[in-house]
Amino acid sequence: MKELFSVVTVEEAQELVSRALPDTWLPTEEAELLSAFGRRLAADIHAPEDLPPFSRSTVDGYAVRARDTFGATESMPGFLTRSGEVEMGQAAGLTLQAGSAVWIPTGGMLPPGADAVVMVEYTEDVGGGLITVNRPVTVGENIIARGEDCAAGQLVLAEGTRLRPAEIGLLAGLGFTRVRVAALARVGIISTGDEIVPPGETPAPGQIRDINTYALAAQVSESGGVPVCYGIVKDVAAELARVLDKALAETDLVLISGGSSVGVRDMTAEVLGQGKPGVLFHGLAIRPGKPTLGALIDGKPVIGLPGHPASAMVVFHALVAPLLAWGSYSRARAKAEFPLQAVLTQSLASGPGREDYVRVKLVQEGENILAVPVLGKSGLVSTLVEADGMLRIPLSKEGLNGGSPVKVGKL
Amino acid sequence: MKELFSVVTVEEAQELVSRALPDTWLPTEEAELLSAFGRRLAADIHAPEDLPPFSRSTVDGYAVRARDTFGATESMPGFLTRSGEVEMGQAAGLTLQAGSAVWIPTGGMLPPGADAVVMVEYTEDVGGGLITVNRPVTVGENIIARGEDCAAGQLVLAEGTRLRPAEIGLLAGLGFTRVRVAALARVGIISTGDEIVPPGETPAPGQIRDINTYALAAQVSESGGVPVCYGIVKDVAAELARVLDKALAETDLVLISGGSSVGVRDMTAEVLGQGKPGVLFHGLAIRPGKPTLGALIDGKPVIGLPGHPASAMVVFHALVAPLLAWGSYSRARAKAEFPLQAVLTQSLASGPGREDYVRVKLVQEGENILAVPVLGKSGLVSTLVEADGMLRIPLSKEGLNGGSPVKVGKL
Repeated sequence: MKELFSVVTVEEAQELVSRALPDTWLPTEEAELLSAFGRRLAADIHAPEDLPPFSRSTVDGYAVRARDTFGATESMPGFLTRSGEVEMGQAAGLTLQAGSAVWIPTGGMLPPGADAVVMVEYTEDVGGGLITVNRPVTVGENIIARGEDCAAGQLVLAEGTRLRPAEIGLLAGLGFTRVRVAALARVGIISTGDEIVPPGETPAPGQIRDINTYALAAQVSESGGVPVCYGIVKDVAAELARVLDKALAETDLVLISGGSSVGVRDMTAEVLGQGKPGVLFHGLAIRPGKPTLGALIDGKPVIGLPGHPASAMVVFHALVAPLLAWGSYSRARAKAEFPLQAVLTQSLASGPGREDYVRVKLVQEGENILAVPVLGKSGLVSTLVEADGMLRIPLSKEGLNGGSPVKVGKL
Repeated sequence: MKELFSVVTVEEAQELVSRALPDTWLPTEEAELLSAFGRRLAADIHAPEDLPPFSRSTVDGYAVRARDTFGATESMPGFLTRSGEVEMGQAAGLTLQAGSAVWIPTGGMLPPGADAVVMVEYTEDVGGGLITVNRPVTVGENIIARGEDCAAGQLVLAEGTRLRPAEIGLLAGLGFTRVRVAALARVGIISTGDEIVPPGETPAPGQIRDINTYALAAQVSESGGVPVCYGIVKDVAAELARVLDKALAETDLVLISGGSSVGVRDMTAEVLGQGKPGVLFHGLAIRPGKPTLGALIDGKPVIGLPGHPASAMVVFHALVAPLLAWGSYSRARAKAEFPLQAVLTQSLASGPGREDYVRVKLVQEGENILAVPVLGKSGLVSTLVEADGMLRIPLSKEGLNGGSPVKVGKL
């Protein structure tokens, strides 16, 4: 067990944990494309073929050679020979001849020889096998060319990309029905404290129901992980060590909440110190959330969170959620998050050398979003319920002035 | 079948559909609290008891009568008799007497007679059963009073509230292990088009793979619904009617994509017109996405989306997602969404009388987020993949100037 612990900043804590982790700390797995929404790609995806696989019309109209329409106007329309039509889902069988036009529906395959489509609105079927065109088109007009969306061989999605609806659609278009993605992080949750009882029980005097297991499980789900709950452990070191061993064997990351009082905090540190390499930091420069412990045991991060639900949730937000967002593949390539920009309605004080997280309500006022601090004791859960988000007063600032622009993270 | 159709605005379309729906168009169900994250409450929740159920210390220290510490300073500390301690999870057995102090850990139950806690840092155990206090406390200091988080009987969460981690935690704290929530909307997805083949098949010339089923299913998941896919239907009215009937029987809302060409569009309208009350609007004042149909059949909304994947996704975003967000209980109480505020990097033109949706990339530049339009044909899926979000040019504007502030919705 290391003897010298020190309080670290949130950034230092993230660095300590991530440096200790292997580059890919989560396994990869195959997922059905239909259920891969929100997952992260575990490998680069190259287009196996052109998309679209043939040039297509984007309108209903006539496939033509653009130069056959040059100079056409409403008063001096051009005349073209109507020669057949393209059917949806069929190969365009005929080759377009100079001076002729082929009817084509939206999405239809452009016939060889054609290089543009005239919208039906600018044509008239005048009978006798002829149509008029009263507006010229340029080469490529109203078509999507073969390979214009992606060309065969092109890198279309990089490893680490989070699959949103657009990425899922693109993969379907390219013929992928399964993709290799990073496994969802399994996060073990252990609640500790002699005073804690499950929500289904009636607390005796001095006892209180377990809030942290539930709030943290929801935060894990929100961050794209899978919560695995290990229930409530009394403040007995051997018992905590036993449950922690089980959790480490079954999950990728373990959260232990509780133990904010001095004696119990020492117990959690002692149990974590028995692992290898053991405790990475002891104390986080954050308010609320100072009594946070970080450890790495058998290659897996273990975070000891404060017992106060509000504090535990802030530390999750600041320290654990980014770790889950990295997943195995996105550490280097994670897209920047864009928090909401808002205007702070009152000045807030902070201490030097720590980050303060302040809960705020958001109010739209004209073009601005106002961030109104929700004041009240940090131990209250109801103030979290009232809040729409959290703002961070960074280490380097001793406070924020009312009226200044702030960034608000989701709560 | 109604004879007169007209193009409506997105707002009018939402109004037409929502007015036609019953106030609660989704059933309710019981959910385990641990898996209720993200769901919407189907009933008001009142606190069945006080939270916390007793007054608790928020620090390690001594429970005292505040007036016994008045005037204490470092140079003139007050002396108090140390009389026992509170154990975690136990009732505070003894009543605090005047002039005495009881050791209490963080979270411990305040003993009767005490009205504040002095942090251990401001005390010293000087032996002989005495402690010194070198800083006064006020009544209520360092405690959370019984019922301070919620008082028994209080409305704590209103019907329609979306359950975030904080709400889940509060419900656990109040002893709820199951909650009544709005059922997840089941959304039927039908892809139409003679040219469409499943992603697992190799398209013949003129054919193209089904993108919409996959992209829309992901959008449904993202919006908190459950996608139910009915595959690809050829452009045959009887076949579409048969699959639509099945989807209407099994789901809460049906999306039909495809049929952007004139003949097929008429077919979809004809099939929807056979239902009761039938078509609500035919054409949406939006770009991309104009060829959108809305109908209500047997009390369920049916939206005919354009065939172009990018257009279908924009219409989902603008019209369908808000409908799902309302769910059954949130129409009146849905919390305002706060889109990102960004600065547009170049001027964009728009037509009067329609909303334009423009894809943008987001770039952080100092304190500002820049919205850089991703230009390119609206039929391309790859431009959607490049984009981080979409901005809306409202009906009332004919464009936006470069440098102006814009709001960007998630893509």
